[in-house]
Amino acid sequence: MRRRYRKIDLPVSTIRRYLEPGPIVLVSSAWQGETNIMTMGWHTVMEFVPSLVGCVIAAGNHSFELVRRSGECVINVPTTALTDEVVGIGNTTGASIDKFERFKLTADPAERVAAPLIRECHTNLECKLADGSLIERYNFFIFEVVKAHVATAPKYPETLHYTGDGVFMISGRIVSRRAQFRPGML
Amino acid sequence: MRRRYRKIDLPVSTIRRYLEPGPIVLVSSAWQGETNIMTMGWHTVMEFVPSLVGCVIAAGNHSFELVRRSGECVINVPTTALTDEVVGIGNTTGASIDKFERFKLTADPAERVAAPLIRECHTNLECKLADGSLIERYNFFIFEVVKAHVATAPKYPETLHYTGDGVFMISGRIVSRRAQFRPGML
Repeated sequence: MRRRYRKIDLPVSTIRRYLEPGPIVLVSSAWQGETNIMTMGWHTVMEFVPSLVGCVIAAGNHSFELVRRSGECVINVPTTALTDEVVGIGNTTGASIDKFERFKLTADPAERVAAPLIRECHTNLECKLADGSLIERYNFFIFEVVKAHVATAPKYPETLHYTGDGVFMISGRIVSRRAQFRPGML
Repeated sequence: MRRRYRKIDLPVSTIRRYLEPGPIVLVSSAWQGETNIMTMGWHTVMEFVPSLVGCVIAAGNHSFELVRRSGECVINVPTTALTDEVVGIGNTTGASIDKFERFKLTADPAERVAAPLIRECHTNLECKLADGSLIERYNFFIFEVVKAHVATAPKYPETLHYTGDGVFMISGRIVSRRAQFRPGML
């Protein structure tokens, strides 16, 4: 069931908590009045300060040109409440449908980019292109996260992790090993 | 409890199943008679053919020079049976200890690289550096997976996913939505 999240702004240096575990994400984009959403599973945190995220947006995606031309996107983290939407968004193209309308998602205005936030997602990361040098060769975009909107609860959302072949792993239990870490490693 | 895996070679184009869900991995390396192991959470699949994986190995790690100079590594996927070892490896440095010895892990010879396979891990991916152009700027290595050794069971291993602050998410249940996918998207 969908829920309404209360969100707060978090320091962008802390967003590894939401991306490093490897969830499938929804990338929203906007260019010249058009918006789109795509699913993405190929991403990695690259740095804390500045807050960098690298990801592959294949050139065949309708979103590719919207992101490349605008140099912006929002990385949204959906929970299992949006499983049908994640699958549907990944199996349709923005060339022929309006995905916000088709999947009944709400486009909220972002603060630092023109791409919209997806209200129904747990986490929304506003991103600006920081380095496009590997786009031509690998479709690899390096973004700086410039603003992070995160739901106050749950602290550890139930996320979808794609394994290929239409199969998802759902995030499971949380285990702290904090007591075994050296202070400098936390 | 540790188990003995029976492993087979899989086509390197299929390894997204093990990396895309976002597990913490153990990177093993070798250079001039020295070996090391480090934990790594910042990685992403980048291409199927050739099989490319991008990852960040911070320059402060003892493994950095071993990997950079040799241009090789093995990416090993541990399960929750190795949780203590993962934490221990991430909180010690190869500059002062032999991690294979300290953590009672077995270094098996690889076929295509000098870096050793960690026998106790579910998946071992032999990697050669494919593109080092972003190492200097971001500590970002792009590897080609040249050989994949994967346990025949379990098909979906119980993996560790790092969230920061000493806290791990453990992989949970598997859900197939294959019937909702367009054939071309599988």
